[in-house]
Amino acid sequence: MVALLGACLSAYGQEMNSLMFRAGVKSPEMSKDSITFRFVAPKAVKVEVSASWLGYNPAKLPMTEGKNGVWSVRIPKPAPELYTYTFVVDGINMLDPSNVMVQRDGSRYMNAFLVTGDYADVYAECSKPGNVEHVWYYSAENDMTRRMYVYTPAGYDRNNRNVKYPVLYLLHGGGGDEDAWTTLGRTAQILDNLIASGKAKPMIVVMPNGNPNQYAAQTLGIPVKTEVKKYASNFDNYSSLVADILPFVEKNYNVIKNRKGRAVAGLSMGGGQSFFIAFRNVNVFANVGIFSSGLIGSAAIGGAPFDAEALFPGMYTAPAKYNKFDVIYLACGEEDGRIDGMKDFCQKLNDHGYKGVIWEQYPGAHEWKVWRRNLASFVQQIFK
Amino acid sequence: MVALLGACLSAYGQEMNSLMFRAGVKSPEMSKDSITFRFVAPKAVKVEVSASWLGYNPAKLPMTEGKNGVWSVRIPKPAPELYTYTFVVDGINMLDPSNVMVQRDGSRYMNAFLVTGDYADVYAECSKPGNVEHVWYYSAENDMTRRMYVYTPAGYDRNNRNVKYPVLYLLHGGGGDEDAWTTLGRTAQILDNLIASGKAKPMIVVMPNGNPNQYAAQTLGIPVKTEVKKYASNFDNYSSLVADILPFVEKNYNVIKNRKGRAVAGLSMGGGQSFFIAFRNVNVFANVGIFSSGLIGSAAIGGAPFDAEALFPGMYTAPAKYNKFDVIYLACGEEDGRIDGMKDFCQKLNDHGYKGVIWEQYPGAHEWKVWRRNLASFVQQIFK
Repeated sequence: MVALLGACLSAYGQEMNSLMFRAGVKSPEMSKDSITFRFVAPKAVKVEVSASWLGYNPAKLPMTEGKNGVWSVRIPKPAPELYTYTFVVDGINMLDPSNVMVQRDGSRYMNAFLVTGDYADVYAECSKPGNVEHVWYYSAENDMTRRMYVYTPAGYDRNNRNVKYPVLYLLHGGGGDEDAWTTLGRTAQILDNLIASGKAKPMIVVMPNGNPNQYAAQTLGIPVKTEVKKYASNFDNYSSLVADILPFVEKNYNVIKNRKGRAVAGLSMGGGQSFFIAFRNVNVFANVGIFSSGLIGSAAIGGAPFDAEALFPGMYTAPAKYNKFDVIYLACGEEDGRIDGMKDFCQKLNDHGYKGVIWEQYPGAHEWKVWRRNLASFVQQIFK
Repeated sequence: MVALLGACLSAYGQEMNSLMFRAGVKSPEMSKDSITFRFVAPKAVKVEVSASWLGYNPAKLPMTEGKNGVWSVRIPKPAPELYTYTFVVDGINMLDPSNVMVQRDGSRYMNAFLVTGDYADVYAECSKPGNVEHVWYYSAENDMTRRMYVYTPAGYDRNNRNVKYPVLYLLHGGGGDEDAWTTLGRTAQILDNLIASGKAKPMIVVMPNGNPNQYAAQTLGIPVKTEVKKYASNFDNYSSLVADILPFVEKNYNVIKNRKGRAVAGLSMGGGQSFFIAFRNVNVFANVGIFSSGLIGSAAIGGAPFDAEALFPGMYTAPAKYNKFDVIYLACGEEDGRIDGMKDFCQKLNDHGYKGVIWEQYPGAHEWKVWRRNLASFVQQIFK
């Protein structure tokens, strides 16, 4: 096998260091058991690491000044996960200039590093990578030319219309955009690894921009649209997915054109959108994934109680109309306030005889470390 | 017309501000005649702007502390151009947290903003955008699965094999990678605008990674390959373009498969590579663009004098073999030491009767503001 890393799922935590040694110091430097962060700031009074592994609202890790103004801190290597951090220099957040791995969460930039092992192995680069396309399409519903990302798996041959792939439509959360799932979410790496190991079916993943006023991620500098079609709610704004995006994808890619070959999933706002899209279109999608939905788990975070029967009359009183899914995957972080409402909805679906219902919960709050695991699990359970 | 910005080439300098107002202050805030930078740093002693518009090795612009620790500086709006900057806080470079437009040059991150007008209008987002694909291909020559970017113009229909497009292979410089031309180089925007206005033919642009040890940009975290095929020089290392990339592109995209429909161009290291690729393969490429080549302009920057006749016997003594190009485009920045050698080569080509020779020079040193203009000019002169 022609290998990037020797094999899929191999660790790159150690070797990655060789890429990062810039700005005069090595940071982060990983050894078998520890990680050292370094930063040159001779004039600084206080330097800290704002560290995602210390909690959801990161606590700060103090650094100590050594020779030549090099601040450093060495920590035991945290458990396998993709972590983010920034330095905080006299109260100001800034990137580690020695680490070229940078991620954006909305408007905020952070450094990243990966500790491989356990479930985080599927976040590493794979030797059989799929492609990611930045694709512009016309949304008639919004009258906008908009950008989405499309993942095609390794081996996908655009010229061979005879081999058809199932499609997962994958939606970001509030503050995110079409870029979020491939960067913070590691979608390409997760799919590459799970497809290469036979644990997930080869599939196409379509990642649109679910903010009705954005043509594309704001990094492109395109002003937002000021006059936007009004919707009842943020969760209700994505009828364009079925009206505009699905026909575009089915025209331009080699895909299965029936409900068994279609899934829609999303996190937070995108989870609410997925709920609406799936239950409004039970004859279009046979698979739905709802991760940490604020719509469904709203009560505990100060929203109106979720009432599926009110939104979809018959949901519980005459469920035959809706009870058509192969997979209804529901998941939430154990420290996320939305979990009670999510669990309650799951229970109600089970109580009313819905088939295909899957519940999963993972350590974590309302954050990407939960959603990456949701994605990795969901894609192994669909298109079977 | 369905428009992103109302029309191609429209200015977005003003409206862009609305995207950027983060971190409590507006920065950069553009008015008709000025730009204001702001940064919150109550504990800082000295804050400056490291500003590309002040020169190639940016001078620093001092900021003044106002109320609540908000440092600021207001400057007259510089001439139209895509500019980069960072803040320098007590000697430490850092990004502007209020500006989501960030670019990477090798391992270094910078903020960016665009002043539209004049030639810089083609750097703005266009209402008819083409797609950019991140594509993995197998290089048999290097025994590596590698990533390249492929731009396809608006209207490109992958399913219609009857409409064929010419292809420009576009190579980055030393320190760059497959990401450089689409970010720092604004390739997609330049092509979008020039194609939309009829000034350039619709074409596909292929942007590979010319570093023989890199599978992909280092931002992905893939370790470099330690055992790499040896080449005579950095400029000589890209025979894989014709051996591996060109067949891949011609198999997977709807392209013209003759020399008239192929061009190769690059900047700096990529200019030297383009020189070798084109003159070794005169029956493959009818168009070549060489921007600011250190190989050709070497003498003035301390290298060996460039001797085309030694590299390609017959270049001057029996030119019929090589004098087959429709376009030999040579360009350099006026403050770039490489300009004398580049001009000298151009003169020799003219002296020996080469047809299609074009010389252009632009204000600037060895920098992207020159290369963006080179690209915008070159693509208007090929595939006619």
